[in-house]
Parts: sequence; C-alpha cells; structure tokens
Amino acid sequence: MIKTDILIIGAGPTGLFAVFEAGLLQLKCHIIDALPQPGGQCAEIYPKKPIYDIPGFPEILAGDLVDNLMQQIAPFQPGFTLGEQATTIDQQEDGTFVVTTNKGTKHQAPVVAIAGGLGSFEPRKPLLDNLAIYEDKGVEYMIKDPEKYRNKRVLLAGGGDSALDWTVFLANVAEEVTLVHRRNEFRGALDSVEKVQELKNQGKVRLITPAEITAIGGKDQLEWASVRREGAKGEVEEFKLDIDHFIPLFGLSPKLGPIANWGLEIEKNAIKVDNTLDYQTNLPGIYAIGDVNTYPGKLKLILCGFHEATLMCQSAYRRIHPNKRYVLKYTTVGGIQGFDGSKKEAPKAVVKAIV
Amino acid sequence: MIKTDILIIGAGPTGLFAVFEAGLLQLKCHIIDALPQPGGQCAEIYPKKPIYDIPGFPEILAGDLVDNLMQQIAPFQPGFTLGEQATTIDQQEDGTFVVTTNKGTKHQAPVVAIAGGLGSFEPRKPLLDNLAIYEDKGVEYMIKDPEKYRNKRVLLAGGGDSALDWTVFLANVAEEVTLVHRRNEFRGALDSVEKVQELKNQGKVRLITPAEITAIGGKDQLEWASVRREGAKGEVEEFKLDIDHFIPLFGLSPKLGPIANWGLEIEKNAIKVDNTLDYQTNLPGIYAIGDVNTYPGKLKLILCGFHEATLMCQSAYRRIHPNKRYVLKYTTVGGIQGFDGSKKEAPKAVVKAIV
Repeated sequence: MIKTDILIIGAGPTGLFAVFEAGLLQLKCHIIDALPQPGGQCAEIYPKKPIYDIPGFPEILAGDLVDNLMQQIAPFQPGFTLGEQATTIDQQEDGTFVVTTNKGTKHQAPVVAIAGGLGSFEPRKPLLDNLAIYEDKGVEYMIKDPEKYRNKRVLLAGGGDSALDWTVFLANVAEEVTLVHRRNEFRGALDSVEKVQELKNQGKVRLITPAEITAIGGKDQLEWASVRREGAKGEVEEFKLDIDHFIPLFGLSPKLGPIANWGLEIEKNAIKVDNTLDYQTNLPGIYAIGDVNTYPGKLKLILCGFHEATLMCQSAYRRIHPNKRYVLKYTTVGGIQGFDGSKKEAPKAVVKAIV
Repeated sequence: MIKTDILIIGAGPTGLFAVFEAGLLQLKCHIIDALPQPGGQCAEIYPKKPIYDIPGFPEILAGDLVDNLMQQIAPFQPGFTLGEQATTIDQQEDGTFVVTTNKGTKHQAPVVAIAGGLGSFEPRKPLLDNLAIYEDKGVEYMIKDPEKYRNKRVLLAGGGDSALDWTVFLANVAEEVTLVHRRNEFRGALDSVEKVQELKNQGKVRLITPAEITAIGGKDQLEWASVRREGAKGEVEEFKLDIDHFIPLFGLSPKLGPIANWGLEIEKNAIKVDNTLDYQTNLPGIYAIGDVNTYPGKLKLILCGFHEATLMCQSAYRRIHPNKRYVLKYTTVGGIQGFDGSKKEAPKAVVKAIV
C-alpha cells in the first residue's frame, strides 16, 4: 500500500504543479497516470509543439513545460505510479481513500485530486480478432521502455508522428524495424518524415505501404503478422512476417474511463466541482482540477489548472490538518524547503556600514 | 481621450497578462499605472528577487518575469499611461466608463479591469514643512527618467536598495551625487552596498551619515537643503548644500487610494468580486483581478491573478460583443495573431509520401 497526503490522478501539468503547491504546505503527493511518463498530453501527444499562453513564456514547447515542472517539483519528491490506470476508489472507515489501479497497485490518502485532463488516453486498436490474446505478449500500444525492443524484430503500424518517431528511435535499438501504413503518405513533422525516408534509403528500416496487418499469430507469444499490400495497379500481395513485437500506433483517444463510475457528478464528460471555494467534487475529500473538471465559465487552459491546483491544496491542507492554522508565505520571502533537504531562498539583504 | 476595449488599472503581472488574453479575443487594452514603468511591485520593489511559485519556472527573478510578460503581450500593442494615478470614474450614458488620472488624462472603455495589486504605491515622505511646494520643482519621490538628472546636483536620502541603486546609477549621470542616511548602516544587496562604498572611496559620490535633511528652500525651484549630521561623540554639525534635486527614497507604501471611492464593495482593503463566474465587482462592467480583489478562499498569488485575468477577458468579450459567439481556440492549434500584423504558430505537419 502506497500512502501519501494527496493522491493525484493524472500527471499532466495541473497534476504536476499540485505537487509543488502541496509541497509548500508540507504535504506529500503521489501521482498515478495511465501513460508511461509524466506530462499527460503535453508529453505524449504534442511535446514538440509550442504553447503561447503559459503566463511568462512568450513561447514554450509542451515537452519543455513538462521538464520545467518536473524540475520545479523535484524538491518535493513526488511518488509516481505510471502506466497504470486508477480503476476503483474505496473510502475507508477513517475517511481516507484507497485507490486501486488496473494492475492492482493500491494507494491510500486522505485527499484525492483528480487531474485527469480529458481522461486517460486509450489506444485506438486495429480490428484483429485475436488481438487481446497477445496483449503484453508481443502486442503493445505504447512504448514504455525502448530497451525492451533491443535486438528484437519489431513491426510498427501507423502514419503519424508516433509511428515516424518510434521508427527513427528503434532503428538504432531493434534488430529489425518494419513500418506498415495504409497509405504511402505520412503525416507528421517534416523532419521526422525525412528521417524515415533516409533510414529507408539506407536499408535500416523496412517500409511497407500502402498496406495493413490482416492477422497475427503465435503459440504463447506473438510470432508472426500477415501483411496485405496493394500494388499501384490494384494487384494484391499478402505475406507473413516473422516478428517479436507488433506495435500499432493509431493514436490515443481520451476516455474518462473508470472514474466515471466513482459516484462523482458528471456533466458533459467532465466532473462538476465547487468553483466558489476549492474545486471539490460532490464527494468530500475528492477534488477535480484542470481540464477534467467543469463549472460555470470553465476554460480548459493549463493556466487555469495551475490556479485550481493551488486552491485545492489549501483546502486539502485544512482537511488534513483541521486544527492547524496556515499562514500564506510568499516564496520570495520564505523560499522553498524541499523534502529532500534542499533549500532555495532569495539572497538576504545585508546591513552594512559604509565608512 | 484615449479609447480602448479594456482599460486596465495596474501594470503588474496580472494587468499585463490580461492584455495577452484580451488580445487572443481581439480586444485592445490600455493600462494606467502610478509607477513610472510597467511591472508593479515586481519591477519597483523586488526586481532582483527570485520567485519560486510561477508555474513552469523553478526560479525566476521578478524583473525577468515582467520582461517576459512584456515580450508576451507585445504583439497586442497595449497602450500605457504611466506615472499617473487613476482618480475618478464616470459611467457615460452609453454604458462606457471614463477614467481620469491625477494629471487629467482621460480614458474611455466599455470595460474596466482593476488590477491594482495592493494599491498604488505612494512614497513615504520626509517631514519637512514646505515639501509640497517643491514637488516637481526639484523634489521627486521616484525616478522616472534618469536623464532628467544629467549634469545636475542631486541629493538622495534613504538607506535601502532604492537609495543604493540610484546612487550607483546616477554617479555616472549627475554632476554631483550626495547620499544622506540617518544611520551609517545601509540595508540592501551586498553587491549594492559594496558598489556605493567603492564610489565613495573613489570620490565619485558623497556620503553623509548619520544625518538627515532638516530644511529645504529655493526661490521658484529647489535650490538648497540643510543637512544635520551627528558626529561620533554626539557633536552636531549643520550645513547647507546647493542642489538641483532632492529625491527622498524612504520606501513606497501601497494605498487603495481613490479607487476606494468608486462605489465598489470593499472588504479588508480589497475589492469584493464574484469568483463564481468572472471576477466582476458589484458594478457591472468593472472587474477586479489579482491581489486587489477578494473572495472566499482568495490567495494573493501571481498565478491566481493570471487565471482571474483570463476569465475576466472572456466575460468582457461577452459584454463588448453580446451577439458574437466565441469559441476557445488553443494557441497551440491556432497560434497568435498580433495587432501589429505578427503571426506565430506551431509548425504545420506535412503530408508526404515516403517512396
């Protein structure tokens, strides 16, 4: 059982910044996210795209914003349960909550803050009858640890940035990389398309287009995939590939998922919260912050999530320490005391005679 | 008459960021501030101090935050009325507001957003009977344009960062710089204290401590000041200095000021707003955002001001364009179109065959 003060569901910018504000109040946080790395959409969907409306940044790449936030919260040593989806919540007799993931990991906290963005990102899957049999036995929809593919034969499918970027990356890791796409045209950053073209020209990756995977098979583990390619004159060719891994990268689609069954008031696929005070849901002790919540006038902007996270932490503090009085200290005045023993503060003024 | 869409009172971080969010909605802004430069407290009081709780910045100097915000809003070409205090507001028959400053500058807008922070900063003044006579005739409490002092004889008084920093700066501008302080000890950044010591050693500035100014005089303009210095053995020395300018830098103290008489609901020196929707005050069309406002759970943090400014702009848009429907566009998707014709946007994906 992982125990913490505030259990945050969702490691996007809002969830990450909540760790910082909690840390200022000496509250510890643990974050659960279905994606394999922190950052939510910013890291998974558009890390290389610029955002222009983060206050103080005329322009920042989404991935850099995540890196900055990770650096900002580092002193407060958040825990992470990544690549797992929060599925159930049970309130205990003492009022605390136990949240269990789809892999059985249990977390306990007096406060739960749902910062789930548009929901947990679930992969779009190819229509293959026996796909589920091979999930985690050779079929993966996200690449968590590229080292897993070292010296393996990897079949990727898809025509977007993910398919292109992982083709480039795995070309140097896997024994063999094959990329299948149903069209000849790929859609992505020019740079990525050009790199794949170059790798193909050098014979380092194999491209099969326009084509699709029609069957997969193997005894206990995935062993082969059947590819169907259509030639320029409409002639059809079908053949088997021996592979260790099949990774369809057909995009992720956000789903509110199991959270929708937690007894929270839901409106238009978002969780209703009390914006007049602390972004708490209808269930006391459970908050919803960032894009996952809704209230009159709600804007799904990262900068609004930052504000919501901050007010949520104040309320969480009062819930966790009902008898303590908290006085806001400005970081410029009080500095930052990390749980790791680190300390940052403004240089002190000196009092010194001039003689 | 200066006309604009949103008239912002206060050029601190919240007021500045409001220009950006308004710009995204194609609304123009003009800002009034009593201080001679934008940035509010961040620029005037602690430009060199680090802030640790701006989301995405593990650490940023207050002055740099202001510079970043100025750069971020530049495409939306805000107007500025600086060094003037908003004193009166009058609602016209057409519902628009006319705000007049202490210097008589008039501004008209359908929406007024008060982002006045802790209030307008008013200088603490020395107790000299005839001080008011010489205001703007040699006596100044803030340095708006250092060039004014070129080749002049300047008397500064004070013992903090402002007094030290302006002594250093004016040493290269003025004909003669004298710094008077009631103690031998100065309180400020070590670096600043050391620079003044060095300038004194080089004979480039004159220091008189422990001492104070007991009288000032002159015919039409300020011509002299009387200095009273106490020696180490208690002996008292009093003498006249011929000067062109006397600049007492005894600190600034924020006062809500004339805004307090605008008919707004005030609570604990802050303006009550409707935090359930748009941070509007009791007077429709007048909003209050940032540290100047109050509502249940209010935190006087810059990041909260950013959120409040954003929601205020949405409401202002509906007020200004009651019949237009606005659909939120993410800057990552839609980019930024400046009023200056500039355009920033994410590089577009290409669709390109790999052959």
